[in-house]
Amino acid sequence: MRARSRPKQRSSADRLIVETAGRIHADVKKSTRPRLEFPVRSLSNVHYDGAGGTFVLNGRMSTRDLSYTTAKTFAQSIRMMSLSKMLVETDDIATKRDAYYQSKNWDEARFEEQPESDTVMDDIEAMLGVNREQLGFIPDQHGGSVVGPVVIIDKHPATGRPLRIDLTKQGTGAWSVPSSVEHLKFKTKAKFVLAIETSGMFQRLVKHAFWKKANCVLVAMGGVPSRACRRFIRKLADGQKLPVYVFTDGDPYGYSNIYRTLKVGSGNAAHLNEFFCVPQASFLGVTPQDIIDYDLPTHKLKDVDIKRAKDALKNDPFFQHHKRWQKAIKQLVKMGVRAEQQAFAAHHLNYVIDTYLPQKLRNVKKFLP
Amino acid sequence: MRARSRPKQRSSADRLIVETAGRIHADVKKSTRPRLEFPVRSLSNVHYDGAGGTFVLNGRMSTRDLSYTTAKTFAQSIRMMSLSKMLVETDDIATKRDAYYQSKNWDEARFEEQPESDTVMDDIEAMLGVNREQLGFIPDQHGGSVVGPVVIIDKHPATGRPLRIDLTKQGTGAWSVPSSVEHLKFKTKAKFVLAIETSGMFQRLVKHAFWKKANCVLVAMGGVPSRACRRFIRKLADGQKLPVYVFTDGDPYGYSNIYRTLKVGSGNAAHLNEFFCVPQASFLGVTPQDIIDYDLPTHKLKDVDIKRAKDALKNDPFFQHHKRWQKAIKQLVKMGVRAEQQAFAAHHLNYVIDTYLPQKLRNVKKFLP
Repeated sequence: MRARSRPKQRSSADRLIVETAGRIHADVKKSTRPRLEFPVRSLSNVHYDGAGGTFVLNGRMSTRDLSYTTAKTFAQSIRMMSLSKMLVETDDIATKRDAYYQSKNWDEARFEEQPESDTVMDDIEAMLGVNREQLGFIPDQHGGSVVGPVVIIDKHPATGRPLRIDLTKQGTGAWSVPSSVEHLKFKTKAKFVLAIETSGMFQRLVKHAFWKKANCVLVAMGGVPSRACRRFIRKLADGQKLPVYVFTDGDPYGYSNIYRTLKVGSGNAAHLNEFFCVPQASFLGVTPQDIIDYDLPTHKLKDVDIKRAKDALKNDPFFQHHKRWQKAIKQLVKMGVRAEQQAFAAHHLNYVIDTYLPQKLRNVKKFLP
Repeated sequence: MRARSRPKQRSSADRLIVETAGRIHADVKKSTRPRLEFPVRSLSNVHYDGAGGTFVLNGRMSTRDLSYTTAKTFAQSIRMMSLSKMLVETDDIATKRDAYYQSKNWDEARFEEQPESDTVMDDIEAMLGVNREQLGFIPDQHGGSVVGPVVIIDKHPATGRPLRIDLTKQGTGAWSVPSSVEHLKFKTKAKFVLAIETSGMFQRLVKHAFWKKANCVLVAMGGVPSRACRRFIRKLADGQKLPVYVFTDGDPYGYSNIYRTLKVGSGNAAHLNEFFCVPQASFLGVTPQDIIDYDLPTHKLKDVDIKRAKDALKNDPFFQHHKRWQKAIKQLVKMGVRAEQQAFAAHHLNYVIDTYLPQKLRNVKKFLP
């Protein structure tokens, strides 16, 4: 089975599954041993593509021949594809956990523990070269909260009819992004997307309708962004050609866990980065220089912060590629402090709205890459 | 200062602050030593009120006289009340973290660490007998996701004008509840609220428009419900006289951390329970008996589950009050297993929608209290 060599995305997930099954069936009929072929999913099979701005697979593959020892996993893979086909055909969804429980009906092919079924799902996703949301599998996390001048074109769950959701009309709340966003379309005249780490800062910007003043879409990531959140931002930014500016705490977690994950994806899911990374992202702040320029109250870096910073400098191809990031992280370590995005409140509560963000947004070209 | 003896809620937070400050000012002018008086906030000052269904304070008070040793905390309390007054007057908000950073401008009254400012905020909340959202202080968490046949009457952040948000028109997403819900009003013909533990189960019910079939409001709590989520459910249920049914995993965490917190609040925040508990809640499932009746796949109880169950039986006034809960928890411990709410997928993916929920909802009087 060599599904990876087929044109991706042009075929629907549905058709990819049928083709794969067809080839297995043909092999069996010819008494050829059928095989499944997956890209190896680990950091060792990955490099950073500076131009494209993502982690990219090096191309090492692993294969699963049908044999005495692999019969069970082989059967599980086929069953999982069959479940996916059903989901796609009936426009239904299943979480990883649902899929695990479904397998309890698969007799000898049932999974004993959920990590086993998760792995098989990852295999199939990588093999078919699609993201698992396209296979009907959804994550068990929502995709963050969004407001601003954008109309979401979704469908009504009860009737299937198109539904336009105006995200300027969510009041003091926001629109909660669903687990799967593949079917969404957008209309917007916004100039950029502002992705925000904390719910508290998001709520302040919503309360004061910052999205209206700045003509932007606000997204609350709530820490490290979930798959759905990353995919949502990517689709919105791609479709509408919007830049994405990221606003996190000024600390190694904000830089290397939140921002880096949003922008380039994660190493051990490199087969997915083409869907989930956000190459149009740049880093607004809080930078180490902001801490100085805006005279922010700070906390001392903890050991775990310093370790995270040093790891990023030493082992992370993304930071190794970008000299400006190396300089920034070294500066922070030297300063020995971190600052939270809410620290601007020390000046006055809405300093972030009337001073910091407008000043930074005048020089977006200076944002860290 | 005896603000607790004043009529609560009838006065706006604003007026309570002015009255309190007025009394301090009068004391100072008379050369009487001013004092602040707070209810003691600990489990030892709490009992469970079976009739009202909440934890209730026993009435022990602590006082803070203005003296050489308390001058700083006294000043901080006054400063915090002053910040609150400004927030209420300007219709602004601040998180605990914002308040901490604000204090960096308070010269000698500045807080060194955030736990200090959190404590002072809790003191004032308890002293004035209002919840801190009414004082303009908001939590740094959003309030869960909601869909269903309900119209939220909110206001437009940019114009302040009333805004009606129809929660049947959120597509495959949902409405994300803001950090503060005090100003919201509701219109609904729904018959009940269904509060759901996991985002995955919520997404399934949204996808299949279960709210339409069952004429109910769906709320995703995302684990232990946040303050805003609890307050939102409470206000919605109170205003519209709706029962609240709770659907969690069948394990001690679901029972004692999620359900119990939603229904009766937490012991060390008993001064808030009048705002945050949801006495109209009852427990739909997953009960230990459901695990048997619906032949659910299970996992073994871990040591931490067993410890949590035994703690609930031994130390928790809520479970001690309800014989049926004691029986259920003992049954689970004896069975030695737990079941997740997604385990129904073992039958078929939408078994929960076409079989389990409809069957359970026919006998709401049998729900655990």
